[in-house]
Amino acid sequence: MSASSLAERVLAGDVRAMARAISLIEDEAGAAAGLVRDIFPQTGKTYLIGVTGPPGAGKSTLVDRLTAEARQAGETLGVIAVDPTSPFTGGAILGDRLRMQAHAQDEEVFIRSMATRGHMGGLARATSDAALVLDAAGKSLVIIETVGVGQDEVDIVRTADVSIVVLVPGTGDDVQALKAGIMEIADIYVVNKCDRDGADRMVTSIESNLALQHFAEGEWRPPIVKTEATTGRGIAELWQTIKAFRTHSEGARGKRLKARNEFRLRDLLTHRFMEHVEANLLGPAEFEALVTRIARREVDPYTAASDILDRALGPSGQRATKG
Amino acid sequence: MSASSLAERVLAGDVRAMARAISLIEDEAGAAAGLVRDIFPQTGKTYLIGVTGPPGAGKSTLVDRLTAEARQAGETLGVIAVDPTSPFTGGAILGDRLRMQAHAQDEEVFIRSMATRGHMGGLARATSDAALVLDAAGKSLVIIETVGVGQDEVDIVRTADVSIVVLVPGTGDDVQALKAGIMEIADIYVVNKCDRDGADRMVTSIESNLALQHFAEGEWRPPIVKTEATTGRGIAELWQTIKAFRTHSEGARGKRLKARNEFRLRDLLTHRFMEHVEANLLGPAEFEALVTRIARREVDPYTAASDILDRALGPSGQRATKG
Repeated sequence: MSASSLAERVLAGDVRAMARAISLIEDEAGAAAGLVRDIFPQTGKTYLIGVTGPPGAGKSTLVDRLTAEARQAGETLGVIAVDPTSPFTGGAILGDRLRMQAHAQDEEVFIRSMATRGHMGGLARATSDAALVLDAAGKSLVIIETVGVGQDEVDIVRTADVSIVVLVPGTGDDVQALKAGIMEIADIYVVNKCDRDGADRMVTSIESNLALQHFAEGEWRPPIVKTEATTGRGIAELWQTIKAFRTHSEGARGKRLKARNEFRLRDLLTHRFMEHVEANLLGPAEFEALVTRIARREVDPYTAASDILDRALGPSGQRATKG
Repeated sequence: MSASSLAERVLAGDVRAMARAISLIEDEAGAAAGLVRDIFPQTGKTYLIGVTGPPGAGKSTLVDRLTAEARQAGETLGVIAVDPTSPFTGGAILGDRLRMQAHAQDEEVFIRSMATRGHMGGLARATSDAALVLDAAGKSLVIIETVGVGQDEVDIVRTADVSIVVLVPGTGDDVQALKAGIMEIADIYVVNKCDRDGADRMVTSIESNLALQHFAEGEWRPPIVKTEATTGRGIAELWQTIKAFRTHSEGARGKRLKARNEFRLRDLLTHRFMEHVEANLLGPAEFEALVTRIARREVDPYTAASDILDRALGPSGQRATKG
């Protein structure tokens, strides 16, 4: 199947085409770039919800509940679970199967896990492209759920239309949890498993953090929603809070969209530049030899990088980068 | 102070020079590159210990105890705590002060927290360079302690000489914790806070994970060390386990060193290429205009990236990247 006919089927909302398109993207197949090119003009309509938080915060269950709530409100949904599962546990596939069951009868919900592979932003790129596929296929909401606090994952969630940070009481280390680097990006806080001891203390910790920030008149102050995803408690309130943020931030949405596309452009540029350096400029053997020389302290990494840049960019680039 | 005299003072083990050098690196000051160039030939002697795990696992206390244990064994230490603390809480600085107290009388221990700033790998770059400073200053061991499961942080720990993954029972979500994307990289597992309910279950979970992997004859099978960092229980065993791994992996150390330097070279190259694109090739205004066009769907990111690469690389690059 050519990329363009696949694109047509994605745009028609064909579920199997969506699955195949995301697999192409995951495999970093050459056809994926053509596919994204073809669908790109039809994207940008979906409202993107980013959900992050530490492992064990109950994000999957929360997202499942939120999906059901949003369905009742007439939305159609795509869910991308960024799942850095070990390749030998097969957790992502198993997780998909378990999670799909809850929405198995519902054609308007598409759930997909994406596992970590490769390095240097490969997952962020694949996740962004997968969201575009679901956007092109006409899903009105796309939820990206991501474990962890790494910069790539933070960037994915930070540039969503709304960023939800899920925390959980009970580790006894509330302050540690608050240090997870995900506090700056929250539009909405969720304290999940709020039936546990320490839930109120966690809310207080977040409040104390917020109290240190200055919010201008009319500025959105991130609310804290207490949920118990396993029973569904608080999910309706969370959905209302998302809608409230959406209304409040309507005018600022272009800014997020720009940040998202800047992130994507930077990521693509650096990725393709490195492909060029390794495949064309040096070749794998010379690249490896250079790394060996650095490891042996025969050349330092800054000098090596400068030399490669000079060769890559030619005379005009040399002047510019050496200055 | 010029970069070279700063380098000389770092090489002499001057504590204030080390602190100043790391600050230069953190600020991404231009002088930092020159400093690293100057000290680089004298580095590569330190044994690098990477410690990672989810927030709340008690890594800081564990590292403090391990530091004391290693000091008794005659090692000199540098500790870099990668601390993605919110900029408005000031947690990193406060944490440093508290932690320094334990080793305040000991000139052979240098502790420094580094906070997340910037995007796209800035922290990984700074952390690697800071480790080089401590290496050059003659510390026999450098411990890099990092929260989280993002790719950058995983790469920092993965390419250390020994990678320690710290887990903690008690969240009731052992399986979730195991899905944190940090399981593949462990040379040694630590189950900290092993006095808690669920410690044995966590050990069993890790064992089950390991049972799925094939280990060849003579291959290192990651051991699981139970610790209670607050009391010091298990720390001596952890130190012995690190030494055992060091002995076992002596022959393979070159491989880690190469991986570390490859990671660093890639990171530097992509970073400096983007600097060139933004500062020289497009300029900030044109770069922003392009992002706006992408956000408006007037051009797709793949086409935009190709155009920029063509301009950056010139005719030879064009042929190579378009093929």
